[in-house]
Amino acid sequence: MFDIIAFDADDTLWQNESLYSATQMRLAELLAPYLDGVDVPARLYETETRNIPYFGYGIKSFTLSMIETAITLTEGRVTSADIRQIITFARDMIDMPTQLLDGVAEVVAQLAASYTLMVITKGDLLDQQRKLDRSGLAEYFAHIEIVADKTEKTYRTILAHYKVDAARFLMVGNSLKSDVLPVVAIGGQAVYIPHTLTWEHERVDPAYTQDARYYELAHISELPDLVKKLTKG
Amino acid sequence: MFDIIAFDADDTLWQNESLYSATQMRLAELLAPYLDGVDVPARLYETETRNIPYFGYGIKSFTLSMIETAITLTEGRVTSADIRQIITFARDMIDMPTQLLDGVAEVVAQLAASYTLMVITKGDLLDQQRKLDRSGLAEYFAHIEIVADKTEKTYRTILAHYKVDAARFLMVGNSLKSDVLPVVAIGGQAVYIPHTLTWEHERVDPAYTQDARYYELAHISELPDLVKKLTKG
Repeated sequence: MFDIIAFDADDTLWQNESLYSATQMRLAELLAPYLDGVDVPARLYETETRNIPYFGYGIKSFTLSMIETAITLTEGRVTSADIRQIITFARDMIDMPTQLLDGVAEVVAQLAASYTLMVITKGDLLDQQRKLDRSGLAEYFAHIEIVADKTEKTYRTILAHYKVDAARFLMVGNSLKSDVLPVVAIGGQAVYIPHTLTWEHERVDPAYTQDARYYELAHISELPDLVKKLTKG
Repeated sequence: MFDIIAFDADDTLWQNESLYSATQMRLAELLAPYLDGVDVPARLYETETRNIPYFGYGIKSFTLSMIETAITLTEGRVTSADIRQIITFARDMIDMPTQLLDGVAEVVAQLAASYTLMVITKGDLLDQQRKLDRSGLAEYFAHIEIVADKTEKTYRTILAHYKVDAARFLMVGNSLKSDVLPVVAIGGQAVYIPHTLTWEHERVDPAYTQDARYYELAHISELPDLVKKLTKG
């Protein structure tokens, strides 16, 4: 039996990366008149990576990185009207409805009948809270943990806080780096459900995963059966 | 006896508003060549207030508001070099050491010997976590709650989560609006320790406070004595 089944949120419960990708394309279009043959998403990714230690994850951090990238790539020629437009992109992202992934509503409702469910999500407090509120799923989750990063230490702290043994903890998510490997490393169980779009920052070298023991599912609708098997074992 | 004594963080445990004020002055100086007789802090405050529902609290939100204000007040004449400078202000704020208020280190260490202490702070996850890590106080707090806003509902949720009766909960902070009134409203006890600088957004109309029963101290060093009196009563 599991004392807690925890879910990642972005691209596990609902679409997220697609929103960032679409906004990157809007930025590339906005900057196209200034640039010639520049890979805007690649350069933006460099800025984002450099900014994570300062600004963390989420829409505001992404927006500050878009503004910096726009200034750098245009060598300062970007107009302030265009910078204002970039801030509008952020508001548009925030206004987007939460789009649940296929099968999520049914699986979450089904598992909530038998298990204590939790969300463990990384990112901006307000962004994540807002998405959860709009998802219609909040009532199914006994606990919500919004964290600055998902490391072994993060999971250890959460398990200690809820007084749950790692062996009785199951984490479900689309990121090997954040949802699977650190959980397996501390003795928990993890289910990896890949999403077609995964942010480059969440990718891991396959060499790191070969010894890790975790379950991989093609679709979240297979989760209740897997949980049933694991709890019978 | 109190099951939990909780502290607000910004301007209760450490300096915060002074950092925002100093940065506002840097923005006013940066924009001075473009403007004539404009009250930059007042106009920035308007933008911040409008942006809170979208961007929430913290340095990133403040920075996006500074950028928007700069573009609006200069009617688009602000250069992208100056906008980049505003993003540098944000990095400088993030890099600032956490400056504890006078007496805090002693009081927190003393109360931690007898009580379960908690931090309940509003704001950006990464900002607040970073300040706490740098404060040297983290070891004294059994629980850290970083929340998007501090309403009656927020406090009710936290107390339910920790299974603490409101009557056995004491909150200490510098904001009547966020730390005192909602706690008193749900049956908890609260200590108000005003700070010389309080953000306009946290001010309340005195009419709202006249019926509320809370304690007011001039300085945090008086807290242990008050706690002693309250627990004897």
